[in-house]
Amino acid sequence: MSGKHTIGIDLGGTNIKAGILDDGGELIYRCSIETQAEHGFEHVFCRLVELVDNCINAADLAKTDIAAIGYGTPGPMSHEEGIVYASPNLPGWENIPLRARFSAATGLPVTLDNDANVAAYGEFIAGAGKGTRDMVMLTLGTGIGGGIILNGRLHRGAFDNAAEIGHTIAVANGRPCPCGQRGCLERYGSANAVAERFVEALEAGEDSPLKASVEAGETLTAVDVERAAQAGDALAVRIWDETCLYLALACIDIQHTLNPECVVLGGGLIGAGDQLLKPVRGHFQQQSWQLAKDHPRIELATLGNDAGIIGAAALARSESESRA
Amino acid sequence: MSGKHTIGIDLGGTNIKAGILDDGGELIYRCSIETQAEHGFEHVFCRLVELVDNCINAADLAKTDIAAIGYGTPGPMSHEEGIVYASPNLPGWENIPLRARFSAATGLPVTLDNDANVAAYGEFIAGAGKGTRDMVMLTLGTGIGGGIILNGRLHRGAFDNAAEIGHTIAVANGRPCPCGQRGCLERYGSANAVAERFVEALEAGEDSPLKASVEAGETLTAVDVERAAQAGDALAVRIWDETCLYLALACIDIQHTLNPECVVLGGGLIGAGDQLLKPVRGHFQQQSWQLAKDHPRIELATLGNDAGIIGAAALARSESESRA
Repeated sequence: MSGKHTIGIDLGGTNIKAGILDDGGELIYRCSIETQAEHGFEHVFCRLVELVDNCINAADLAKTDIAAIGYGTPGPMSHEEGIVYASPNLPGWENIPLRARFSAATGLPVTLDNDANVAAYGEFIAGAGKGTRDMVMLTLGTGIGGGIILNGRLHRGAFDNAAEIGHTIAVANGRPCPCGQRGCLERYGSANAVAERFVEALEAGEDSPLKASVEAGETLTAVDVERAAQAGDALAVRIWDETCLYLALACIDIQHTLNPECVVLGGGLIGAGDQLLKPVRGHFQQQSWQLAKDHPRIELATLGNDAGIIGAAALARSESESRA
Repeated sequence: MSGKHTIGIDLGGTNIKAGILDDGGELIYRCSIETQAEHGFEHVFCRLVELVDNCINAADLAKTDIAAIGYGTPGPMSHEEGIVYASPNLPGWENIPLRARFSAATGLPVTLDNDANVAAYGEFIAGAGKGTRDMVMLTLGTGIGGGIILNGRLHRGAFDNAAEIGHTIAVANGRPCPCGQRGCLERYGSANAVAERFVEALEAGEDSPLKASVEAGETLTAVDVERAAQAGDALAVRIWDETCLYLALACIDIQHTLNPECVVLGGGLIGAGDQLLKPVRGHFQQQSWQLAKDHPRIELATLGNDAGIIGAAALARSESESRA
């Protein structure tokens, strides 16, 4: 590879984030611009290409200093083929040969990955999983995304669809999931599931100080439930604790399948901090076997919104090096 | 490596099986002797060493034709350290530095792995998973063992304890498992669990033509339940179908975690053939998402008792080559 730096890009429906990693893996520059998704694919694509040039200039680098670009995309894609099949909240992004187009427009090698994989790789390189060889990340947000790093490498699977851990089955014939399955982990352990299960319990006749505001049409979030649990609302305590139990059982499944050193929890739900981490660890200790000393550490992610750009740039570096 | 052949050994409480693979991966010789486990470790160890010599002679080879020995052990061990911590049904086999001792006694490199891993690798090299790069095997017997092959390599995990898929959680707070956990997959999907759940249902007051023989003290097996299901016994039909459902859900968890090309079912329970495979496949099709075309093939193991010796010998070859 010619240059020593790599660029990471994290495209969302609202903002495009970009960053530059130096050859020591340090994030030396980061920026964010509006996506302007409503103007369609070609418009956003031009903004991506411009953003690359602007980043390089703003960081006082030349294009020859850049080895490659890494790109994290939300939604179905093929790493192998370099194709984005669809991007939620980005109209017109369908079946785009993004790697080829982006590479042609920038003159740089491009690597394409799922955004949850990319964030996991970021935490592995520079965050809560730094120093491990085997790490699994669960991103607890609207749904549950995942990323798996084994022997220092991202595990993508035979169909580029590995680490969709939110769709492993937590409850046989359980709550329906928009994916078409029943009982998916993300129907029990995601931020959305916390709020939904709380409202369902109210509708089933259970009581809570929050009942009046829900009946008045206010939209509850996981944060509301967590605060109510802290304030001693018995229903909120139960829903929150069950959430932590399901996440602990997911960590046990990961332990006995992949046996990694570390499971990292990320995403919006970890805003709860120790209110999440302590009961997840507690249930894990209580529920997992003591037959072997093979418990993974369970940690909260540390990079926040930078995980995606760091991971994308680091994956681009790793691919560049394996090409070289 | 000097020689071109490798030896695989599969040690059980009753018999020691051994085989020789040629450089094309063909099993050119196999034999089996009694373990005589009751005489303790040193006695069995001498038999192992003798067996290696006898195999080489019987196959008309010289020791210089052999590159390495692979050894599959039941129970806790360390591949990295080459230590057997314990071997169920083998008195005196505790904390044995087997790799070092066996290698010193035979003058050949030795590689040590868990017996379920070794059988999975055998199916990967020469059986139902041949031709894939990513494969997971579930061995359905007394418990449920597992083996994971990713990118053509056995995945052992950070603590040499990966693929203990029998101890992933099928039911939160479910049936107690001797491992100390509750709701382990092997309490629902193993051969033993089929018989146990059937008897428990009888004890809970359900009816079956088998009730009288159970009350007379006869020991039911999974085969009895499967035959009763085929004969139309409603309770047996339900227990057998639930077993197949839990196994299908385990395949879904494997799909969404590792995304392999193939899941291979092995062990005693697959004696049921299509009576097992068809409903497992059926439940999988019905329960797994249709969002992506990433369903693994679900297949029955094809090597039977040879999987262990073939896998052990093939792992020895693969380690030899990576040392060379």
